Amino acid sequence: MSEGELIVVALGGNALLRRGEKGSFEEQYNNVRRTSRFLADLVEMGYKLVITHGNGPQIGATLLRHDAGKRMYDIPPFPMDVCGAETQGFIGYMIQQALRNELKRRGIDKYVITVVTRVIVDEDDPAFQNPSKPVGKFYTKEEMEELKRIHPEYVFKEDKARGGWRRVVPSPDPKIIAERHAIKTLVEAGFIVVASGGGGIPIVEVDGVEARGVEAVIDKDLAGERLAALLGASRFIILTDVDGAYLNYGKPNQKKIGRIKASELRKLYDEGHFPPGSMGPKVLAAIRFIEDGGKEAIIAELSQLKDAIEGRAGTHVVP
Amino acid sequence: MSEGELIVVALGGNALLRRGEKGSFEEQYNNVRRTSRFLADLVEMGYKLVITHGNGPQIGATLLRHDAGKRMYDIPPFPMDVCGAETQGFIGYMIQQALRNELKRRGIDKYVITVVTRVIVDEDDPAFQNPSKPVGKFYTKEEMEELKRIHPEYVFKEDKARGGWRRVVPSPDPKIIAERHAIKTLVEAGFIVVASGGGGIPIVEVDGVEARGVEAVIDKDLAGERLAALLGASRFIILTDVDGAYLNYGKPNQKKIGRIKASELRKLYDEGHFPPGSMGPKVLAAIRFIEDGGKEAIIAELSQLKDAIEGRAGTHVVP
Repeated sequence: MSEGELIVVALGGNALLRRGEKGSFEEQYNNVRRTSRFLADLVEMGYKLVITHGNGPQIGATLLRHDAGKRMYDIPPFPMDVCGAETQGFIGYMIQQALRNELKRRGIDKYVITVVTRVIVDEDDPAFQNPSKPVGKFYTKEEMEELKRIHPEYVFKEDKARGGWRRVVPSPDPKIIAERHAIKTLVEAGFIVVASGGGGIPIVEVDGVEARGVEAVIDKDLAGERLAALLGASRFIILTDVDGAYLNYGKPNQKKIGRIKASELRKLYDEGHFPPGSMGPKVLAAIRFIEDGGKEAIIAELSQLKDAIEGRAGTHVVP
Repeated sequence: MSEGELIVVALGGNALLRRGEKGSFEEQYNNVRRTSRFLADLVEMGYKLVITHGNGPQIGATLLRHDAGKRMYDIPPFPMDVCGAETQGFIGYMIQQALRNELKRRGIDKYVITVVTRVIVDEDDPAFQNPSKPVGKFYTKEEMEELKRIHPEYVFKEDKARGGWRRVVPSPDPKIIAERHAIKTLVEAGFIVVASGGGGIPIVEVDGVEARGVEAVIDKDLAGERLAALLGASRFIILTDVDGAYLNYGKPNQKKIGRIKASELRKLYDEGHFPPGSMGPKVLAAIRFIEDGGKEAIIAELSQLKDAIEGRAGTHVVP
């Protein structure tokens, strides 16, 4: 029985932008409209819904716009946390508008509300000493060096395989969703909530009082897990562009994981079976959700959302 | 007695950015911190608070960043409604963080929540036939003509007094705050809410179902009035950089209006006593609030907020 059960859904990059697209509003909004049809199915089935989403390409574009604005018009560029807040505003707007439109079309009068969300990370998180998350475009050595002159605080890493330099930022572990109480209030009152977009705006709490933004990017699935756990959701669904977690992914002996206990998956994760940049954080988020008391975590392909919920698709992680 | 009374406060441009500043995050956040001290006084006095704010210089900068991003990096620029959503995200983030910090410092454990807010306007609003609201910077004729080539849909007007061309957009009349129910739910649950930033994201409802963004800017005081009226606020306070509404402002015989009935002020407004670009919409918003059943509308200077609430400063419009 689904009535009243709360599901947190984490939308992957393909829910907003598809391969080969340049990132125009029209492209992104069309993708969000398609995504909304899958999400609306869940609402129609009676579930309460909280939606979170990535913002990788979007914050990349935002940072470049700030850089270009500085160079062309001398407009001061914003720090990364503030750019993240910008993407939450615009992506949330797209989702709340497209999903409400879709629901109205189906005769369901529910509002979708975007809450600008900060996520608390630990000031002493080792990630701050080791920026590792690439953001934005690839640069030549010359472009990189010029950027370094304008923004001396930027850290770059060379990607030899793809031939170029990319800016890297810290990716600290999310601890607490600052706005969790308001999100819960809205969910309980029957609203669908978009929250913690792009992994949330990363903040630290200095002396336990002064919240301050930091230049970092939080993994959106790990932040989504915190959101799901803190809200007491029964299920946490990570949607992406593959139909589940695989062992030996991309190799001849690849094997999809159907249903698995969190303890078993934790063992496989610790053995290094999942690549850190892509499936790794999703698997870790799924494991953590069960360890934090969740009933089921699912990793599935976006268009299979309904099948995944009904147990016919995706990787299902259970206690 | 103020316990539980709801006040909607509309912050003017000077709450975010001050004359001569270039618009860096540090400048804006410092201003927001100062503003938060005035707002926190109201919370400490026991009032429930909903905050709205302008975004003129911010959306101007955002539009220029999108233009620069297109020229330098070929990143598709977003329409104006989407740029407005971006500014709601970042300005809301600043207010929610600074005000919660200030409240915590005073021992008050209240959360400040930013709701991405759409405002419904009429598709047939005459403003769409007559774009009049200037946005962004001044251009030379050559720059303007080049922009026209890139964005043929842009409309420009010459400002002969200040010597240059500016983009103008429609400024339709706000009708309904789309997210009003969620805002009300949050306020009733004890949250302080930031909503309808920059006058809200302007949308029209096509055939009463399909909500769609439009390229326009809504006056933030008129939108704030709709917010205050729809939430059933008892008071609506418009904060700006002058200490009230004046007759013959700037002339030797200027006279500040202290306390006035809405019907009297309506007469003065209709006679054209208040300039359309600045005090006009504030006076109109104040009049409308009383006509819509509000108890008191106040126009006051930001730093006089507490005095204004207690009747010692500002222009007070009453039934």
